[in-house]
Amino acid sequence: MVSSEALAERAGTTGAQVRKDLSSFGSFGTRGRGYGVDPLHARIREILGLTRPWQVALVGAGRIGSALHAYPHFRDRGFRIVAILDMDPAKIGGAWEGTPIRDVGELEAVVGAESVEIVILAVPASAAQPLAERAAAAGVRGILNFAPVRLRLPEGVEVNNVNLAVELEALSHALSLEDARR
Amino acid sequence: MVSSEALAERAGTTGAQVRKDLSSFGSFGTRGRGYGVDPLHARIREILGLTRPWQVALVGAGRIGSALHAYPHFRDRGFRIVAILDMDPAKIGGAWEGTPIRDVGELEAVVGAESVEIVILAVPASAAQPLAERAAAAGVRGILNFAPVRLRLPEGVEVNNVNLAVELEALSHALSLEDARR
Repeated sequence: MVSSEALAERAGTTGAQVRKDLSSFGSFGTRGRGYGVDPLHARIREILGLTRPWQVALVGAGRIGSALHAYPHFRDRGFRIVAILDMDPAKIGGAWEGTPIRDVGELEAVVGAESVEIVILAVPASAAQPLAERAAAAGVRGILNFAPVRLRLPEGVEVNNVNLAVELEALSHALSLEDARR
Repeated sequence: MVSSEALAERAGTTGAQVRKDLSSFGSFGTRGRGYGVDPLHARIREILGLTRPWQVALVGAGRIGSALHAYPHFRDRGFRIVAILDMDPAKIGGAWEGTPIRDVGELEAVVGAESVEIVILAVPASAAQPLAERAAAAGVRGILNFAPVRLRLPEGVEVNNVNLAVELEALSHALSLEDARR
């Protein structure tokens, strides 16, 4: 068993918040005793959609793409990078750990053939919007976008943006506030 | 001039939200006319702490570190990666674009000599906590943490976590919710 307080301690929040958050997904745990670790783990995996594998295509075989491809915690959780695409002729025809790097012109064919549901978009800002549109039109349901640009896509396509510069700016903002207080 | 509606359109929010957010940083713009682009840009840079450069050390010269080092939008905004540190003897002594890769044992010396205020931590989960503690003790004020672990640090050290697996899980969660609704 694990208490909401122990979970809160690990997550950097309060026990009350943990109980509130978990209760929003249904009835969990036993009052005064906490949560059974195994059922809680199973339920959280279910909530996160991790009870089945996801076919993922990586678009952009640059440095960020390379780092993401090698990131061990994607495969752990059932995210399978089944295709890598790029526009650079010097990269096309190569392979990363056995997965060939294909011409991004084949995006639609790859999405169909591999039943790709999620695209990781690791391309320059200027290339992101048209590639995202093509992925969406080909049937991709979710895009993890590393390009520093807001994508405009039809309703029903989920987009999650990771903007690395914004993450650093959150720090410089906080440090500037501290400086102003002194 | 730019209107709050035009800003909202780009940011994916509402004009009312833009006005509310900006007003929390003081008096901005002219009712009915919007914001002057140049003063708004200058004020936002100020709010984000981008009116002066930041000395940054990159700890971890792996694939994520390499991608971050090459990321063009850090330098743009005044984040200068002035030092790279790693524990791998095969990497130490090398250099990325002229910046030498040094032994992480020199972390404290480097933070002092280079007046490092921000550390980007791109190391495995098991290495992150002790390195973060050392950086904090050496005077680092902010840590951008890519290790999938919650850091426990003294008050006054700002931490911003980027967990790439969590970013993909946000997508799989959303897609699973859609599936459940069908």
